Amino acid sequence: MFQGKIKADFIKTIIDATAILVDEAKFKLMLDGVYGRTVDPAHVGMIDFKLKKEAFEEYENKEESEIGIDLEKLKGILKIAGAEDIVEMNYQKEEGRLIVTVRNITRKISLLDTSEMHDTKIPSLDLPAEIVVATEQIHQAIRAAEAISDHITLIADKDKFEMVSEGDTDVVEMQIPKEQLYSLKCEEKVKSMFPLDYLSDMIKIARGASDEITINLGNNYPVRLSFETAGGYIKIVYLLAPRIESE
Amino acid sequence: MFQGKIKADFIKTIIDATAILVDEAKFKLMLDGVYGRTVDPAHVGMIDFKLKKEAFEEYENKEESEIGIDLEKLKGILKIAGAEDIVEMNYQKEEGRLIVTVRNITRKISLLDTSEMHDTKIPSLDLPAEIVVATEQIHQAIRAAEAISDHITLIADKDKFEMVSEGDTDVVEMQIPKEQLYSLKCEEKVKSMFPLDYLSDMIKIARGASDEITINLGNNYPVRLSFETAGGYIKIVYLLAPRIESE
Amino acid sequence: MFQGKIKADFIKTIIDATAILVDEAKFKLMLDGVYGRTVDPAHVGMIDFKLKKEAFEEYENKEESEIGIDLEKLKGILKIAGAEDIVEMNYQKEEGRLIVTVRNITRKISLLDTSEMHDTKIPSLDLPAEIVVATEQIHQAIRAAEAISDHITLIADKDKFEMVSEGDTDVVEMQIPKEQLYSLKCEEKVKSMFPLDYLSDMIKIARGASDEITINLGNNYPVRLSFETAGGYIKIVYLLAPRIESE
Repeated sequence: MFQGKIKADFIKTIIDATAILVDEAKFKLMLDGVYGRTVDPAHVGMIDFKLKKEAFEEYENKEESEIGIDLEKLKGILKIAGAEDIVEMNYQKEEGRLIVTVRNITRKISLLDTSEMHDTKIPSLDLPAEIVVATEQIHQAIRAAEAISDHITLIADKDKFEMVSEGDTDVVEMQIPKEQLYSLKCEEKVKSMFPLDYLSDMIKIARGASDEITINLGNNYPVRLSFETAGGYIKIVYLLAPRIESE
Repeated sequence: MFQGKIKADFIKTIIDATAILVDEAKFKLMLDGVYGRTVDPAHVGMIDFKLKKEAFEEYENKEESEIGIDLEKLKGILKIAGAEDIVEMNYQKEEGRLIVTVRNITRKISLLDTSEMHDTKIPSLDLPAEIVVATEQIHQAIRAAEAISDHITLIADKDKFEMVSEGDTDVVEMQIPKEQLYSLKCEEKVKSMFPLDYLSDMIKIARGASDEITINLGNNYPVRLSFETAGGYIKIVYLLAPRIESE
Repeated sequence: MFQGKIKADFIKTIIDATAILVDEAKFKLMLDGVYGRTVDPAHVGMIDFKLKKEAFEEYENKEESEIGIDLEKLKGILKIAGAEDIVEMNYQKEEGRLIVTVRNITRKISLLDTSEMHDTKIPSLDLPAEIVVATEQIHQAIRAAEAISDHITLIADKDKFEMVSEGDTDVVEMQIPKEQLYSLKCEEKVKSMFPLDYLSDMIKIARGASDEITINLGNNYPVRLSFETAGGYIKIVYLLAPRIESE
């Protein structure tokens, strides 16, 4: 038997963060919180989140289990919750349903069979550069880039972080010098190109959750985007595969 | 000659309340106010409103008459009125037009022939249960139900009021115990099922007009929804036919 | 070499004001400001604007030149600018690109060949009536007229200004007596009919820029709409061709 009470905003963040990649996801109800790892069908983007039990108002779980969720269903009932509402979730293995309550309203959500849902493995990556930057700045650069292209190149060296997007005729660039970043660790120049649509979705989620985001970057390598919310009790990590630059 | 001045919000409420059922309606300009009764073409929903002359800033009417109105036209001119604007309406039988003035702007609306528009008769209903409840609560339950189904069952007994909607796999329920209702009169359990789309439209109108709504309910019988606004000088009653539950 | 820094709102007004008529426009970078004159492809509407150098925070221009701009591109980068942001623009003839910077983000916009873009000549018009009126009032009358027709007639005489629109069955009228106008110069009655869609677009731009608008009107003649913003340092004039009234 799992039972949790949590602020609507917190659980919405997790559901929305996962829903940009997949429609259905497997969540692990652990003794110390709820975990999820999912890769999108095209194997381009991946999420790895930890929703620690301390993010909940109340958290009770005697036995670890996995549940398969149609994310649209959970979004449906969360839509009626205001920012200050507490969402109550109950799961009993034998019933095979997640019962979600917001105020006087209860939705009994039938769950998906998790036996067909593979575990997602997080690749081990050696990403030499780490940039901590204002989420809002990344968001602005992405908006400007979306007007001209469908990909964007992230570049870091020891002095600055850059985002460059090239269209057929126009170029959009953002340069942030080291002193305007929260932090920059980068020994030698690294550069990778990414699909804008995935990056844009990920940054929108990050922006709703945290003022800053940590970017780990390599050369023609996946990027790791990580941020926290709920006083650090929610941790979300995205991995995004690079696009190979045609020369 | 009919002449009336009324707050834009009040007349908008009446027009919107009728427009969820029909495009054209017959209104009766009476000595003591404006009345309207209309049933939708499918004979599922019905409205019966009274807009008493006391709801008007000024009201002058020497002779009772009926006018047929294309509601879109009236909505068109009301769209330019702000919440605090006063709308002036003039009707002279011999001209056959309703003249509506908002600030400096006048729209002369040609009227419809009422000779083909039948009078709507209100069926006499014996509805044993009466529930007075916060409109907002009903609205929330309907929003949650809309995600899974196209119908909803209203249930009352002596202790509580319930709304239950069943989809193919999921269930949405709202239970309000007697102590959370404004009032509950119900000797024995009653239960009827209704189409969600009509109920949703009606509750949206009620929600814009009043914090509370009175629900009269029976067993597999139409429901009566009634509410007031403008200090009680506007009374709106909806009747909604039940759906027969397949067993 | 041209270089200017300007409040985002000011440059947005100019771009939006031109974009209601054309997708591409030629702007003249003059020693004392930026000028533009453009007619729409159907030769119904025309804009003539002056963006004086005093509207800029900084303005540097050594040599007059013309640039051809795809307005969507400029709108794209301006979209990321907040109301208080300063937009920086740089143009070097030899590079053939306009470089626009908002905060840390730069867009290099390739320019259009102006050799094919004809100069627009402003017809000299003798318009006997001049009305200065609240932009909001015109906007309201247009909104009401749009519900019933696709054209509107502007009428002035020595006592009042009128806008009249006739649909198949209904009529919308606005009358503003002289005392409710900012000013009215009109010796004898004038009257011209105009396409509502163009007029509506022009008035929306005027409304965003200025509380009042000057209307110069004749008999079955183009109308001249003019307004200022940025403390008078931005002047926009629209000309709109009349529609011939069928009798």
